[in-house]
Amino acid sequence: MKWEGQERRTLSLGILGGGQLAQMLALDAIPLGVRVVALEPDPQAGARLCAEHLQAPYTDPQGLARLAECDAVTLEFENVPVEALEYLEGRVPVRPGAGLLAHSKHRAREKEALRAAGAGTADFAVIESESDLDGALARVGGQGILKTSELGYDGKGQRRVRSEAELRAAWDDLGRVPCVLEGLVPFVREVSLGVARTAQGELAFGPLVENVHRSGILRTSVYAGADQKAAAQARELARRVAEAWGLEGLMTLEFFELPNGELLVNEVAPRVHNSGHLTQDGGGISQFGAQVRAVLGLPLSDWKPLHAVAMVNWVGVEDETAQPDWDAIDALPGTHIHLYHKAWRSGRKLGHVNLTAPDAETLRARLEQLEALIP
Amino acid sequence: MKWEGQERRTLSLGILGGGQLAQMLALDAIPLGVRVVALEPDPQAGARLCAEHLQAPYTDPQGLARLAECDAVTLEFENVPVEALEYLEGRVPVRPGAGLLAHSKHRAREKEALRAAGAGTADFAVIESESDLDGALARVGGQGILKTSELGYDGKGQRRVRSEAELRAAWDDLGRVPCVLEGLVPFVREVSLGVARTAQGELAFGPLVENVHRSGILRTSVYAGADQKAAAQARELARRVAEAWGLEGLMTLEFFELPNGELLVNEVAPRVHNSGHLTQDGGGISQFGAQVRAVLGLPLSDWKPLHAVAMVNWVGVEDETAQPDWDAIDALPGTHIHLYHKAWRSGRKLGHVNLTAPDAETLRARLEQLEALIP
Repeated sequence: MKWEGQERRTLSLGILGGGQLAQMLALDAIPLGVRVVALEPDPQAGARLCAEHLQAPYTDPQGLARLAECDAVTLEFENVPVEALEYLEGRVPVRPGAGLLAHSKHRAREKEALRAAGAGTADFAVIESESDLDGALARVGGQGILKTSELGYDGKGQRRVRSEAELRAAWDDLGRVPCVLEGLVPFVREVSLGVARTAQGELAFGPLVENVHRSGILRTSVYAGADQKAAAQARELARRVAEAWGLEGLMTLEFFELPNGELLVNEVAPRVHNSGHLTQDGGGISQFGAQVRAVLGLPLSDWKPLHAVAMVNWVGVEDETAQPDWDAIDALPGTHIHLYHKAWRSGRKLGHVNLTAPDAETLRARLEQLEALIP
Repeated sequence: MKWEGQERRTLSLGILGGGQLAQMLALDAIPLGVRVVALEPDPQAGARLCAEHLQAPYTDPQGLARLAECDAVTLEFENVPVEALEYLEGRVPVRPGAGLLAHSKHRAREKEALRAAGAGTADFAVIESESDLDGALARVGGQGILKTSELGYDGKGQRRVRSEAELRAAWDDLGRVPCVLEGLVPFVREVSLGVARTAQGELAFGPLVENVHRSGILRTSVYAGADQKAAAQARELARRVAEAWGLEGLMTLEFFELPNGELLVNEVAPRVHNSGHLTQDGGGISQFGAQVRAVLGLPLSDWKPLHAVAMVNWVGVEDETAQPDWDAIDALPGTHIHLYHKAWRSGRKLGHVNLTAPDAETLRARLEQLEALIP
């Protein structure tokens, strides 16, 4: 190396996946002097615009070999093929690693591992055979949500059940695959928090964000800077889980807040998260910059917005003609449009709009206007 | 077009030049759904990482033809070859256009056009022939700075002169090319402000930024949010010049502030400006996002940080081993590293670090720490 200053500029980060998370990771990596290499079969993947796009299956030998040449590898989805992980492990640091992914990709193991780490969860019953159904509903409080243990996201692979009969029907409906029956949690709101941990054990946290879902998909996230007590509790739970699971890199915890203020962990994403997109325009480090630093072992501090900021998702709706009013959004003060350069599909996340404001009150007022502009 | 929402995503913006300004423009254009096409002969140009890089001379016929296919074309430097402009004009909107560039690329014409627009400048004398030297120094106050009328930047092509003899020697030294002799301005500080104007005449402004230079090159820029009076004056001067010159797109004015508070225009850059880089991390629109919107005619509002923010340039110094302490910079709260992926050269701008803080006092304290980490 001719000189120190170039070391940073020759760092490279591999990522399994090339969708919007990889795209936004690359957009934040370039200014840090880091080149991103994305393994992604979709030729139209958003990451192609700002990363080296390896258009091949996640298990492609040449593609994996190229990722192994990077300084570190991370991922944008949890269900990474085992073969891919097995190839990469030992050749290049994969962060988070296989151990943590084994927890987070499987709902039942995740809940057990969360409780073992000292974090509360909803009551649950593991449903893997006919006999597991007996009395399961009673054990979780008489009604609940049956979720497939693997491959579920954005509300997919879930059924609400209020009776033994509904439970059996739902399990048949889900193909009798391994499931978790979760008791209903009488939560007052849903919040989330990101946590990063370097290989040296250095911890850093994102902001506590309040989330509102619509038909199972995140609609809005808000950071208003208050919530000191809830944020402290969320950070403590995140610390426990990060240390118990040996996190290297970044993960995001989703919580239910109970009426008494207690936080239960709903689920864990071993990566940046939709609810953290608002950090892109908060004036602090973004969750993507935090992920780059944590995965590459660069010094890291908490990534928190310096002012009130919110996010509204743009999800494809059935009526293709119902589109966001882009010009009105551009004209609204404080808006930051983020498009993913993906083909339209109903129910697909196509972009988001971040909204900044000098104070929480202004934010709430503008957020109402912004929501009206995005179907 | 299948649906409205895709219109935005298929917008493309051409740019003459592919250096760090084009790179940062592209990084802000992608989230807006805009693809950037950069015509730039340098194979290692930073824009290659996030834009379609046409590696060819600025006058390359195929390259210019590709730019002409874009929705609009802008530039990252003022001295655009006349042939390039002549080819593009009429085929695609070039913003700013040839008329404005004719002013800003030539110091003498620029000063005359600024005064015609009702903006004050330093006293000056045009030096284009031997005889112009006679009495020129006296007319600008006895001492001044001789600057080449064209192609000067970052303090290059300038000579300080204190006597008739020094003036004649300086003009010889500069090759007896057309020059402007500027009188010394007893300024208390240097500030700058960006202004954007759409083809429809809609105006928007950036923040008033305070700048400190080191050996002719910008070292630090600071936005602390105060300066309401100076900012109002700068906006009014920028409005006059933008309207008188028929600005389409974005330009930046550099000012000298006199002891009595009056602002004189030092020079005008027909583009985003180094002093505006701090808007990247201010929580508002960045100057690059503003340029994308203004050049493409998208709705635009003022681009102002929501909190105190500063910038420190990293310029290659003689001693190659004297490098910024990247780890210490990453560890300092509020830092945002922006590297240009350029080859090292002494005196060359290689990157900058933006610094955010909740208030002006914290910013000043951190800025002192940050400056100590960047040689």
